Amino acid sequence: MQVEDRLKELKVTINKKVPRGVTVTDVEFEGPEMVIYTDDPKRFAEDHDLIKTLARDLRKRIVVRPNILGDTEEAYDMIKAVVPETAGITDIFFDTDTGEVLIEAEKPGVVIGKNGSTLRDITMKTGWTPKAARTPPIPSVTIKQVRQYLRESRDERKEFLRRCGKRIHRDSIYTGRDHDQWLRMTTLGCCRQVGRAAFLLSTPESKVLIDCGESPGATGAASSPYLNVPEIYPFNNLDAVVLTHAHLDHSAFIPLLFRYGYDGPVYTTPATRDLATMLQLDYLDVNNKEDRAPPYSSNEIREFVKHTIALGYGDVTDIAPDMKLTLHNAGHILGSAIAHFNVGNGVYNVAFTGDLFYGKSRLFNPAVSQFPRLESLIIESTYGGSDDFSPSRVEAEERLYEVINETLGRGGKVLIPAFAVGRSQELMLAIEEGMRNNRIPKCKVYLDGMIKEATAMHTAYPEYLNTDLRNLIFRDNYNPFLAECFEQVDSYDKRQQVIFSEDPCVIISTSGMMNGGPVIEYLSNLAESPKNMIIFVGYQAEGTYGRRIQKGWREVPIGKRGTIVINMEIQTVEGFSGHADRKQLMNYVQYVQPKPERVFTIHGEESKTIDFASSIYKKFHIQTVSPQNLETYRLV
Amino acid sequence: MQVEDRLKELKVTINKKVPRGVTVTDVEFEGPEMVIYTDDPKRFAEDHDLIKTLARDLRKRIVVRPNILGDTEEAYDMIKAVVPETAGITDIFFDTDTGEVLIEAEKPGVVIGKNGSTLRDITMKTGWTPKAARTPPIPSVTIKQVRQYLRESRDERKEFLRRCGKRIHRDSIYTGRDHDQWLRMTTLGCCRQVGRAAFLLSTPESKVLIDCGESPGATGAASSPYLNVPEIYPFNNLDAVVLTHAHLDHSAFIPLLFRYGYDGPVYTTPATRDLATMLQLDYLDVNNKEDRAPPYSSNEIREFVKHTIALGYGDVTDIAPDMKLTLHNAGHILGSAIAHFNVGNGVYNVAFTGDLFYGKSRLFNPAVSQFPRLESLIIESTYGGSDDFSPSRVEAEERLYEVINETLGRGGKVLIPAFAVGRSQELMLAIEEGMRNNRIPKCKVYLDGMIKEATAMHTAYPEYLNTDLRNLIFRDNYNPFLAECFEQVDSYDKRQQVIFSEDPCVIISTSGMMNGGPVIEYLSNLAESPKNMIIFVGYQAEGTYGRRIQKGWREVPIGKRGTIVINMEIQTVEGFSGHADRKQLMNYVQYVQPKPERVFTIHGEESKTIDFASSIYKKFHIQTVSPQNLETYRLV
Ligand SMILES: [Zn+2]
Ligand SMILES: [Zn+2]
Ligand SMILES: [Zn+2]
Ligand SMILES: [Zn+2]
Ligand SMILES: [Zn+2]
Repeated sequence: MQVEDRLKELKVTINKKVPRGVTVTDVEFEGPEMVIYTDDPKRFAEDHDLIKTLARDLRKRIVVRPNILGDTEEAYDMIKAVVPETAGITDIFFDTDTGEVLIEAEKPGVVIGKNGSTLRDITMKTGWTPKAARTPPIPSVTIKQVRQYLRESRDERKEFLRRCGKRIHRDSIYTGRDHDQWLRMTTLGCCRQVGRAAFLLSTPESKVLIDCGESPGATGAASSPYLNVPEIYPFNNLDAVVLTHAHLDHSAFIPLLFRYGYDGPVYTTPATRDLATMLQLDYLDVNNKEDRAPPYSSNEIREFVKHTIALGYGDVTDIAPDMKLTLHNAGHILGSAIAHFNVGNGVYNVAFTGDLFYGKSRLFNPAVSQFPRLESLIIESTYGGSDDFSPSRVEAEERLYEVINETLGRGGKVLIPAFAVGRSQELMLAIEEGMRNNRIPKCKVYLDGMIKEATAMHTAYPEYLNTDLRNLIFRDNYNPFLAECFEQVDSYDKRQQVIFSEDPCVIISTSGMMNGGPVIEYLSNLAESPKNMIIFVGYQAEGTYGRRIQKGWREVPIGKRGTIVINMEIQTVEGFSGHADRKQLMNYVQYVQPKPERVFTIHGEESKTIDFASSIYKKFHIQTVSPQNLETYRLV
Repeated sequence: MQVEDRLKELKVTINKKVPRGVTVTDVEFEGPEMVIYTDDPKRFAEDHDLIKTLARDLRKRIVVRPNILGDTEEAYDMIKAVVPETAGITDIFFDTDTGEVLIEAEKPGVVIGKNGSTLRDITMKTGWTPKAARTPPIPSVTIKQVRQYLRESRDERKEFLRRCGKRIHRDSIYTGRDHDQWLRMTTLGCCRQVGRAAFLLSTPESKVLIDCGESPGATGAASSPYLNVPEIYPFNNLDAVVLTHAHLDHSAFIPLLFRYGYDGPVYTTPATRDLATMLQLDYLDVNNKEDRAPPYSSNEIREFVKHTIALGYGDVTDIAPDMKLTLHNAGHILGSAIAHFNVGNGVYNVAFTGDLFYGKSRLFNPAVSQFPRLESLIIESTYGGSDDFSPSRVEAEERLYEVINETLGRGGKVLIPAFAVGRSQELMLAIEEGMRNNRIPKCKVYLDGMIKEATAMHTAYPEYLNTDLRNLIFRDNYNPFLAECFEQVDSYDKRQQVIFSEDPCVIISTSGMMNGGPVIEYLSNLAESPKNMIIFVGYQAEGTYGRRIQKGWREVPIGKRGTIVINMEIQTVEGFSGHADRKQLMNYVQYVQPKPERVFTIHGEESKTIDFASSIYKKFHIQTVSPQNLETYRLV
């Protein structure tokens, strides 16, 4: 049956199931959801079981939306009029995907009103479903920009969601007994290397790409996944793209897909959408600054945002006629997810860990390791080598304090190259606590690159942070990210001032592998003096300047800047990585439920993926594969 | 540089290298060859080193052809006039691909003339290069038909060869250092099963399909390889198809490629081309008789013939800018070949054994096991299980004689289902010798199905037979295939006569796995009497009637014919297979030179490919893979 006919039938069925007097005027697939349009949204709202029953009977994610969604400008004025000024509204964002309006205010309680009376009032008057949220303590330019993109593309997005919904709910082609079913995974990058993550899942029915990142430190064709092989090309054959997290080694080439014909959805968490947008915009910026022609423009980043379908952890979502996707916390960075696929009505289940941290960090809970079903696990191996044991976070912090004390004590400056997202916040929290508890002297901690912006996003998405930190910020009203030691560097002049000031200080700057970004500026000025210190706290990929310096190069040719002679001290403090170490990785495989039949080790140097795979086989008797790039494995 | 410019340059270069007075008027790529057109073919013919030197300097296969190739009809008359009538000319075949004319005669010596004088005379008068051959003792309808196809499509074929030549010699796209090279093998069938052989080799530059067969006994989608996956589709992206041998599990779906857009070359031996044509035509026939819609028509078989580029064993041939192919004797059936690929100027070498016999049989020499280079070996595993030891050919013949004696002794008929190609001829030779040496009583040996035709082709291509047999036929002038015990069944009446005669006899009939063909007719009439006997001498695939009867089914439902009750005796005589047994397979891996880095075991039931692979690993410490269908492995 065609989708249109199915929708007509569904409308008849639903109208029979709803109470007398309630009219369902329209049923539409919009993205993965089935939207029921009605004149009586309140009847649905009152009878909560009604939606639940419908969802269960029809096996769909159901959303009820009023026929008349007030014009957003009128609604805006209405909300401003209804909510008392004391609420301190800072932003009103209309999400036309969901019919919800997000009201950010200094005092969200005032927006809600006594027993929710103000919210109800808003619904009655505007048709929109209001949600009140606390204004993030640090404003994020990126979130503002993303909301702006979504606002501008409202109509286009509606059209996109309906088209996408119809595609997801299309009829299966291969249902005959005659047809033999299969599920394949193709590796387009990230095998026996760290970088350019890209994996394809395909069945006779559908094709899904997981991640599409760059290879840090690589140039030319080697920097991107293999996107011109017939398995993936042309891109408009893809049903979906799934993004595990925002780091560029997973996200950098997603906008490129839109340049070359992709026009479908990108499933990811809202936090990843926003963080990835920030990192992609910066990626363009760095490319431009380094005189490399970027492979796409900000237009394609906007396309990425417009085509994102944001999912919360745990939402089970139809993404193709024979595939359901669920994202789960991966513990790695804000919004990072393990992508779990249920294929062919549960016939086969496969999880891609993306990048993983399987322990409690200052920021996040450990990665989820319980799944309803699981046959294949595709797991990262950054620290999968047999020697890759990291010290505990506590030991790491001790060591960090030690190195900082030493450097500050001799009047030097500490330069910490760090990914803007994840490690920087972890370091900030450690350093802030160290100063608060007098473990290290009080001094300025300068943040350069996108660290402040990334931090702002952490406070805008508190639901991803672990309970302790959330409590500290919202219950105890102490936001460590706002501590006065932190100072943003946002201009050339300011950077020069930091560099040439006499005062010892700590500088946390991007990029984390020193392959671009303001950290290079600091390096070239601070390298000369043996009083200064670089502390490496994260993984340095082969081919990056960071790796070279870490390995002991004392003369580093940095493109057109010439050669930097390095006299400053180099230290590596292990234990701050956002990646599980060998012990955590083995624990993860041991504790993951249910026990998978097969484990693929990826996202690691060749020797590490192979060693990790063979250790898993020896210890747990699970079939393992350490695939190469450009291979295809049959899962079913 | 474009191919056209390259050809112009080559013409200039060659004209500088040839002796004064010789003019090269044109240089063309035709298929894998570089053809030099000249008005002085005799000067080239005289100075044999000239072509050799040119070939070495230009690193091309060079053919010299006179500008004026006489009109074939005039040349025909001329040859008839020049050659004395006593030669007994039976066929004159002009091969426009090569400029050769094949003169088949009862007395080829008379065609050659004293010291080759008659041949020289023909060259002078016609421009064609004559070759004399002995008229095959049994005329082959198929060979006649194939020559007819080629004759009819002369102009089209010229156009095809030039187009194909330009494609082979096109410029490489990926030559930059930036580009990383790879070689991949994709399994489209024949993994963990016997049947539907189809493998794809691909590089950034080119794509080659090896075999494209059916799965005997399977129906619907499962009977053909996976031809609708993006790795292979669309077919016009293929650079070449290589056919290892004629059996339908390797050749049946090659004509289908032409129906769906393929328009390139099929590289194979001349014998395989002709045998495959016969088997494909029969495949259509059987499909029609069984009321199954055949997937293509005889038009596509004609396309297959027209697009064939015939290669002899050992010819090193450019088939793509970065691939050279060499076919080597596989010992399995007439014309069967191991396909050896040299990729990227020797960077990587991979051999597909096709079906293999690694011992001397009555018909052929053992498979070739020496290669200039070899990194990966893809080897068949039909009898790769740890118990798959066959008796020697001598033991097998003893046992065959025993069972025949027993049956004839009790007045019964012996029915031997056999592939038309290979096993039938092996049996004929054994039975004929048995009768000649009085090991079994003299009786009629009826041949039904295409066995006679297949036998005819064996005598038309004596160069593929082993030395003993060739000597027997041509030196000792005794052709065992013509022994008087053999009698062809070529009509319904004749078949009924054989079935209902009182005389004991032996019947060899197709198909070899009893999934169609006249053998079914014999079975349904002979099954009733316990005096009669079926002897299985070849592999019976899962799902075929042969397998069921062999397993002991005593009531066999045969489609619309109803159920056959089987009272006749069933015996399996092992040792006649055209496939290497476990011992031969292990020997092959042991003796193959050079030792490959990796072995893939295919063309065998799941347990056998796995067992064979793990035994190779244990015994020879070579990395092994037992791939599944639809997987891709990275070789480089
Ligand atoms: Zn990451
Ligand atoms: Zn990563
Ligand atoms: Zn065969
Ligand atoms: Zn075969
Ligand atoms: Zn053609």
